[in-house]
Amino acid sequence: MDLLHTIYLVAITAEAMSGAIMGMRRGMDLFGICLLGTVTALGGGTARDVLLGHYPLGWIANPEYLAFTIGAAIVTAVIARHLHHLRMIFLLVDGLGLVAFTVIGCDVAMSMNAHPAIVVVAGLVTGIFGGLMRDVLCTQVPMVLQRELYATVALFAGVLYVGLLWLGVNNELASLAALAAGFLFRVLAMTFRWKLPDFNGKDIRGLD
Amino acid sequence: MDLLHTIYLVAITAEAMSGAIMGMRRGMDLFGICLLGTVTALGGGTARDVLLGHYPLGWIANPEYLAFTIGAAIVTAVIARHLHHLRMIFLLVDGLGLVAFTVIGCDVAMSMNAHPAIVVVAGLVTGIFGGLMRDVLCTQVPMVLQRELYATVALFAGVLYVGLLWLGVNNELASLAALAAGFLFRVLAMTFRWKLPDFNGKDIRGLD
Amino acid sequence: MDLLHTIYLVAITAEAMSGAIMGMRRGMDLFGICLLGTVTALGGGTARDVLLGHYPLGWIANPEYLAFTIGAAIVTAVIARHLHHLRMIFLLVDGLGLVAFTVIGCDVAMSMNAHPAIVVVAGLVTGIFGGLMRDVLCTQVPMVLQRELYATVALFAGVLYVGLLWLGVNNELASLAALAAGFLFRVLAMTFRWKLPDFNGKDIRGLD
Repeated sequence: MDLLHTIYLVAITAEAMSGAIMGMRRGMDLFGICLLGTVTALGGGTARDVLLGHYPLGWIANPEYLAFTIGAAIVTAVIARHLHHLRMIFLLVDGLGLVAFTVIGCDVAMSMNAHPAIVVVAGLVTGIFGGLMRDVLCTQVPMVLQRELYATVALFAGVLYVGLLWLGVNNELASLAALAAGFLFRVLAMTFRWKLPDFNGKDIRGLD
Repeated sequence: MDLLHTIYLVAITAEAMSGAIMGMRRGMDLFGICLLGTVTALGGGTARDVLLGHYPLGWIANPEYLAFTIGAAIVTAVIARHLHHLRMIFLLVDGLGLVAFTVIGCDVAMSMNAHPAIVVVAGLVTGIFGGLMRDVLCTQVPMVLQRELYATVALFAGVLYVGLLWLGVNNELASLAALAAGFLFRVLAMTFRWKLPDFNGKDIRGLD
Repeated sequence: MDLLHTIYLVAITAEAMSGAIMGMRRGMDLFGICLLGTVTALGGGTARDVLLGHYPLGWIANPEYLAFTIGAAIVTAVIARHLHHLRMIFLLVDGLGLVAFTVIGCDVAMSMNAHPAIVVVAGLVTGIFGGLMRDVLCTQVPMVLQRELYATVALFAGVLYVGLLWLGVNNELASLAALAAGFLFRVLAMTFRWKLPDFNGKDIRGLD
């Protein structure tokens, strides 16, 4: 589906820019910025493919993806001081990208005849592991584990997509519906600051 | 071997609970708690399978494992404030799980005709990498690298298991012996606070 | 090429020692020191092989590599207080190892008929991911992302090697040229403290 591929390219560009910004904030040099941007953008799909044993990886079969992420990181390094004016556009592209990554991840797992639960997990991993790896490389507890309905949006979009396909809806329509509903959910979650319960558990005694 | 499989299911449940507790202590939300519990429980087997190229991964072939780990994490989130009463049971299940993971990991590598040293390493990775990934996601230096005879127990159980098989002992008996001796070693190590030398090296000059 | 293999064995020994030293500085026990040394030495090649789907991994096909890295870590634990006298030799071996890892990584990707850009990336990953994993396990932002021309040296050596092969130079000569030029570049970068621009970006506003 061409629309999905176009959204994918826009999304990896935006993710690479968000990774590059975080790298700059950590005092990384140009190489670090490019690597962090690339990991943020392509890490989710890479993790999914390694877990599924789905070779070759996306960016190895399509090395031009690296040109997108490295190019985006370099541009970001140059114009970073002005990017915060685009913050709102960024959050929207990031939200759309999250859902697009999820749908694409589900497709890959389905092409390998995975169990429906694994299909949803593959979508989720594709959506969130790039940001998770970015945060680990910056030695901070991954944001996706802590706040906002980010992973939940991916889970929702994945379940919706798999459910619609299971009901016999054709692939293109199911993709569009999951993209639209997932994106709407993300925008609502940001607007109203929805979040999952977090249990206030810092004083709980450990077991080890 | 059915006993080993039963121990495995109990062990992934206990590991998921320990990961979930740590997630709560870090202020994670429900999604983070479920993911951290799952990574703690299934991360070791996943790392082993990826290193060996042994596909499909255990939890992809058996998605019900995810139900165990996610269910355990959710239950933990609800009853966490009372779990420390069970701390002793926990440590025992964790010790048994460590040895069971190790024996299962050795079996997987042997099924691929790996070198005996690699068989032991595969057992070790299965035993300890879940906790190691949990700690990296919580941005703390992995406990298994710092203190207590945890990894050493896995190493001992793996070497014993491989050695017994090499001596011609049948698989079931060798598994039982490794489980029993490894578990006993772990209990003794905890009781008497055995530990490896740690060299007091914080003032050593680096090389970079 | 025998020279390359010899350099490889010397290099994994040196990398294992550097990882072991860092483990000691973090208060790790003997097991942690051995594991950190091994990950530092073999992590780059492991990451490359997992990304390329190139099985079996180097150290699984050649378990004797583990004997080198574990042996080096144990020796390091014993003599660590005297090692800083060897700091200069260390940096030179480390620089040579970086370039040798890169050339070997390129070779592996070429043996799988990868795109030239992927060949260079494979060399780069082989050269730098061991140190990157070491730093993540020690919960510090990877040094390779922050300072000095370390990754850049790998990139340069990889591009030079691939370029020479593309020009029709034979493999042995291209390896030697990349080793020599890359090593020289590394020595110059250390001597004159060359570094990439780092943008002074700590005050830049994030996008999330």
